[in-house]
Amino acid sequence: MPAYDDLIRRWKEAAILSSCGSVLGWDERTYMPRNGSAHRAEQMALIAKMCHQMTTDPKVGQLLAQAEKAKPDEMQAANLREIRRSYDRAVKLPSDLVEEIARVTTQAQQVWTDARANSDFAKFRPWLEKIVALKRREAEAVGFKKHPYDALLDEFEPGATTEEIRSLFADLAKDLTPLVAAILSSGKKPNREILHREFPVPSQEFFGRMAADKIGFDFQAGRLDVTTHPFCSGIGPGDCRITTRYNPKHFNESFFGVLHESGHAIYEQNLPAEHFGTPLGTAASLGIHESQSRLWENQVGRSRPFWEHFFPLAANTFPQTLAGVSLDDFMFAINDVQASFIRVEADEATYNLHIILRFEMEQALLTGDLKVADVPAVWNERFGKLFGITPPNDAQGCLQDIHWSFGGLGYFPTYTLGNLYAAQFMEQARKDLSGSQLDADFRAGKFERLKKWLNEKIHHLGQHYRAKVLCERITGKTLSHRPFVEYLKAKFGPLFGIPA
Amino acid sequence: MPAYDDLIRRWKEAAILSSCGSVLGWDERTYMPRNGSAHRAEQMALIAKMCHQMTTDPKVGQLLAQAEKAKPDEMQAANLREIRRSYDRAVKLPSDLVEEIARVTTQAQQVWTDARANSDFAKFRPWLEKIVALKRREAEAVGFKKHPYDALLDEFEPGATTEEIRSLFADLAKDLTPLVAAILSSGKKPNREILHREFPVPSQEFFGRMAADKIGFDFQAGRLDVTTHPFCSGIGPGDCRITTRYNPKHFNESFFGVLHESGHAIYEQNLPAEHFGTPLGTAASLGIHESQSRLWENQVGRSRPFWEHFFPLAANTFPQTLAGVSLDDFMFAINDVQASFIRVEADEATYNLHIILRFEMEQALLTGDLKVADVPAVWNERFGKLFGITPPNDAQGCLQDIHWSFGGLGYFPTYTLGNLYAAQFMEQARKDLSGSQLDADFRAGKFERLKKWLNEKIHHLGQHYRAKVLCERITGKTLSHRPFVEYLKAKFGPLFGIPA
Repeated sequence: MPAYDDLIRRWKEAAILSSCGSVLGWDERTYMPRNGSAHRAEQMALIAKMCHQMTTDPKVGQLLAQAEKAKPDEMQAANLREIRRSYDRAVKLPSDLVEEIARVTTQAQQVWTDARANSDFAKFRPWLEKIVALKRREAEAVGFKKHPYDALLDEFEPGATTEEIRSLFADLAKDLTPLVAAILSSGKKPNREILHREFPVPSQEFFGRMAADKIGFDFQAGRLDVTTHPFCSGIGPGDCRITTRYNPKHFNESFFGVLHESGHAIYEQNLPAEHFGTPLGTAASLGIHESQSRLWENQVGRSRPFWEHFFPLAANTFPQTLAGVSLDDFMFAINDVQASFIRVEADEATYNLHIILRFEMEQALLTGDLKVADVPAVWNERFGKLFGITPPNDAQGCLQDIHWSFGGLGYFPTYTLGNLYAAQFMEQARKDLSGSQLDADFRAGKFERLKKWLNEKIHHLGQHYRAKVLCERITGKTLSHRPFVEYLKAKFGPLFGIPA
Repeated sequence: MPAYDDLIRRWKEAAILSSCGSVLGWDERTYMPRNGSAHRAEQMALIAKMCHQMTTDPKVGQLLAQAEKAKPDEMQAANLREIRRSYDRAVKLPSDLVEEIARVTTQAQQVWTDARANSDFAKFRPWLEKIVALKRREAEAVGFKKHPYDALLDEFEPGATTEEIRSLFADLAKDLTPLVAAILSSGKKPNREILHREFPVPSQEFFGRMAADKIGFDFQAGRLDVTTHPFCSGIGPGDCRITTRYNPKHFNESFFGVLHESGHAIYEQNLPAEHFGTPLGTAASLGIHESQSRLWENQVGRSRPFWEHFFPLAANTFPQTLAGVSLDDFMFAINDVQASFIRVEADEATYNLHIILRFEMEQALLTGDLKVADVPAVWNERFGKLFGITPPNDAQGCLQDIHWSFGGLGYFPTYTLGNLYAAQFMEQARKDLSGSQLDADFRAGKFERLKKWLNEKIHHLGQHYRAKVLCERITGKTLSHRPFVEYLKAKFGPLFGIPA
């Protein structure tokens, strides 16, 4: 099957070049000297341009068509399916639109940074207007059946539709809103101060590295470094790097961040190396990726069995800080629920309400039902309805996230999909591996059986199946809000004294 | 002049891509996780292949020919001269030869590492035979007037010839041999133990960074990291990185290494950014590059005025270690001269004898007058004549350097050229800026005037002039061994009590 092989060779070559850009991106956010940024931008732009040329080469289209006709086997068919999706999307976008989006979003990110710092929406507004218009053009160029938002969503969550996510999120909101209300009116509050004592950075680093190592992050095939906005960067086989930032007065920021990024990295580190650069060697979707980070961060990392192992170690690592703190106090503190303005600091119960707000507003922006000028007012009004509090300014409201400034409309829903997938996968893992035995594993600081299950069920498959199908294959069911809601009720019910 | 502009655009683009490889190379030697090496090799090979394609594209040849005919101005002519040299060299090499050299030297470096570790020349011998044969083919493909060695030399030191270097080195050896003999038989020896006491690594790091900063390394446009074999990597405008390794029981290793790499970096950091990616934005030659590292390491960094400023700071930084050590003791210890086996550990007086040995053997290998099988015996015999001692094994003899294993025949002479250029430049700087005032600067920890002189005379010019011409323009004379020999006599005469 020479057309297929030649296609794959070309696709892999573009991926290797793109992975050079990943090293440069990692370096830019960790070690690059300050004055290197202008040259770095030129390097990144050149690599992006060359990768785009390589993957949209008409020869690729010819080979793809030939390969599709040549009776591919199941694995090949999966590769061809996703290469087709990427290729069609890429060639449908006129190059002037691609360049315009790149140019505008590069500048818009700078404007957004300043606008957020000064809580000055008026400054960002014309840029957001441009971006929404450009993304609408993008959606039209890509094409869609029902909703222009589908065309954007598809970039991050292949095959997902606005309609099904809307219905899923509606179900979720219906259960979530009364649960959150019950928690907030329970009158119970943990002693949050525990987590804001002195946590010396070197001890945090030691403790975070130990936990990452124990859950299965491979330090022979990765690194942990410090950055401003933590991320995980999968460079290629044997090299996936995570980052964190340390706040000496807040335990959660680095520790749960490290678990989160480790979850992403464990996925990347266990993709099949032989398929690197092809869909079979690539994560299924952003939603599935996020399920892996949230699973380790929350489902595992905020569970009692996990802390039955780690709390004594934490007490040894931070002896003065945690003197006299009980496991119960600690568990309650790390599982606090409260209405708050900032998405990235939100707890498990309220987090998805932040996403639902953004998901709704993005759709309305795209159809034109919501004008950019009305974003702050609409944000604050809906936020008030969802959380019962109103952002004191736009920096803590509609300006808080970077996503719109880089043109990432359609990205937010994958965060909630990740939470739902994580709960549904974990429910299944507890069936397949016995929940009580998993708890016993965690209590003993052992995570290998769960990791192996995730490797086999998810990581090793790459994009063999789309997210939706993958979920059905693993759990026997389509994705539902129920496992997540059940999980929240089981956890927060006892903590806040809410009757089942 | 559209042909010229298009040519420059293409040449710069290849340089930007190549500079991505520089980031990857730096990362590989500093932070890359162990398991990332196989993927890194693929990334590096792809970038090398693409850069080669871009710079040997027939379109480049056409544009070059057009631009040459179109009355270039002086700056353009300099760019065209060096692009012509690189292009002709690249297109003359058959691609199977290029690939074969890449393949063989990649493996040979691994073999060499093991062979050196076990002092097992027999293991390395077949690889060296292959490499010599390949480099002979390379020399023939490139072409040469008198000596095949010219063709190899030209890659590192554009325009230099074997004949002129041979004559220069012969003059040097004639003066150096009696000087070294007089020093070694002087009966005077410093207390070397001073430098082998406990030098805590964090204090070494602090002290090295302070010195690098004071002499003019710009930490906003560069970094200092730890590696196994220290190097300097110029990535692009605003980004040049140096590395070091710390030996807690030896002061010299890191400190003089940092000065050395800072010298290279100060050159890179002060190349004209607007000419990045063209010859006018590139260092003149390896010899001139080495002159900058040796100038700061030795001419400045081992001088008494330098240490009149730094020794009190060293005494503060290493209070117990240097307690009771006088500046005189310290100066003598860092300027010790002795016959030794290892080139990279050699002092200023004996260093060039190591280079002369290699230079002679490389020429003989290339002509076939020396068989690879005879290398160990010939090395030891000539070494005995030069130094009066015989290497106890090949690891400390002919296997000590990595250069042959990567195919770098023709590279060694640039080290001695660097020493000679450094002395001749410094002699001129002392005339232009007043030597006594420069000494006063150094005593006050000020190096800006010297750095500015180097910026203007050398760094800002890139490859505007070839090394030889540059030297004549700066010093009014062709390169000579005399300033270097005078410098050595002036320094070592008093230390070892040798009459002038």
